[in-house]
Amino acid sequence: MPDRTEILAAARRIAGHVRQTPLIRIAGPEFGLSHPVTLKLELLQHAGSFKPRGAFNRILSAGAVPEAGVIAASGGNHGAAVAYAAHRLGLKAEIFVPELATEAKLARIRSFGATVTQTGATYAEALAASEARAAETGALQVHAYDHPAVLAGQGTTALEFEASAPDLTHVLVATGGGGLIGGMAAWYAGRAKVISVEPQACPALHDALQAGRPVPAPVSGVAADSLGARQVGALMFPVAQAHVAAAVLVSDDAIRDAQRRLWDTLRLIAEPGGATALAALISGAFVPPPGARVGVLVCGGNADPASVVA
Amino acid sequence: MPDRTEILAAARRIAGHVRQTPLIRIAGPEFGLSHPVTLKLELLQHAGSFKPRGAFNRILSAGAVPEAGVIAASGGNHGAAVAYAAHRLGLKAEIFVPELATEAKLARIRSFGATVTQTGATYAEALAASEARAAETGALQVHAYDHPAVLAGQGTTALEFEASAPDLTHVLVATGGGGLIGGMAAWYAGRAKVISVEPQACPALHDALQAGRPVPAPVSGVAADSLGARQVGALMFPVAQAHVAAAVLVSDDAIRDAQRRLWDTLRLIAEPGGATALAALISGAFVPPPGARVGVLVCGGNADPASVVA
Repeated sequence: MPDRTEILAAARRIAGHVRQTPLIRIAGPEFGLSHPVTLKLELLQHAGSFKPRGAFNRILSAGAVPEAGVIAASGGNHGAAVAYAAHRLGLKAEIFVPELATEAKLARIRSFGATVTQTGATYAEALAASEARAAETGALQVHAYDHPAVLAGQGTTALEFEASAPDLTHVLVATGGGGLIGGMAAWYAGRAKVISVEPQACPALHDALQAGRPVPAPVSGVAADSLGARQVGALMFPVAQAHVAAAVLVSDDAIRDAQRRLWDTLRLIAEPGGATALAALISGAFVPPPGARVGVLVCGGNADPASVVA
Repeated sequence: MPDRTEILAAARRIAGHVRQTPLIRIAGPEFGLSHPVTLKLELLQHAGSFKPRGAFNRILSAGAVPEAGVIAASGGNHGAAVAYAAHRLGLKAEIFVPELATEAKLARIRSFGATVTQTGATYAEALAASEARAAETGALQVHAYDHPAVLAGQGTTALEFEASAPDLTHVLVATGGGGLIGGMAAWYAGRAKVISVEPQACPALHDALQAGRPVPAPVSGVAADSLGARQVGALMFPVAQAHVAAAVLVSDDAIRDAQRRLWDTLRLIAEPGGATALAALISGAFVPPPGARVGVLVCGGNADPASVVA
């Protein structure tokens, strides 16, 4: 489990490489709510999502990187982040993506000069292919979520959020494989209640918490390309048991609605996974208690705008 | 000329009605520059541009509003802002827009419940039509730029920018009719150098400063719907003479390029007028001196994303 010392060290390590993303405070009625919401606009991060935090921390803390460079499997955002980090650090990058990866994300990964291999129906199959390839080439594997340095890197999102908005009582975060919420919950460690939000169609953390251990879960729906891990990481699970206050589920319709609201209200293009946490508030899947001060992480924006704006 | 006291009063008056928009710091190489840039993301303002600042200040400082409500002429953003303000304040709104107004802006205005009349080839003709209509109905006219309360309201953008980034030496702002830069230059009053950026195809302030008085200028090109005033306001002109350090021009290609860079780098959809100030840096039309600390206002986002993302 990453502790605050490791997350602080990660923040120092990646400081020159990631953006401090801004907050904006939205009055409740704008989203049909009875309370204001503080959004952290992590979709403005390099490569369009929070993922460079973990990618840079993993690569920069690995010591010497082999001549073969880095290799990763990803639904898209992690691949773009690893490709971006490799590009900035002058390393080769090879990215394996499943067939469900969107064209927007493939273009994003290629734009940073990485070699892309599209294989397998799901993230899990792409991961297996990337591991086989890494065994051949010796490239440094950068796991999308289940690695201590990745968790600590993603945890810097919470460090920044707390520094900019220290009074929040509840922070809503979308969960896929759990690297982001694992790092963030490890940082907050109960000082704010961290709420996990998943699509009903990708309920990996919800199902794991019910089962008492990571278990395979369905992967489908509009956010599958970013939140569609087959099961949550082994490293994040005890953090979630200790420090995730609730795991709520939202429908695909609620996610699409939150995407449209972010465009109508703020002129922001969020991808489905990026709008999932907000969807829990707008749809009423999570209702904060009276007096709560609520933060929401908008974690990714790698969508084709035409999929959001009618 | 609005002074700092009036701008401070405007900030207090509109505080519950406008968003404090966030900043983000971008490293120079990301835009091909040798210096970082601090962007103020005013495109995240209500109704998608800075315009509600002036609209609210004008309406809230007018005393009683007639039963007929408010009326305005606008290329689009001001109309959306007045419609938004009227909607929030429970007032009727009638908006006159020229034929060049984009569909994105018409939809935006209508979404706030205003009555829209599209008439005339240019903003100036729509303004004349709105004045004739106001004479019939008695509605409160909310001028798009040439009114002291509008200038003071737009000036709050600079007040916020300076409070969040007090060390800037240069602030780049797009100019149309001059309400925004007039208010901002009045606030900064030389403490930071305020740089006006206009399209070559809409050079109203550039031409006025050369002539020594507001003069009619051409109106065409990609940003005409937001920056296409036929001449700058009488009230802002002495402010510009005193406190605008330079008036630079950029090509339509440079504006389109800056829009694409904002999408590629930050996943932001800016309208042409919203990307015009940044275009001056990226294109080299304005090169800050060594050691400058440069801020850029990204002032509007009411564009169809399909016009930005290929």
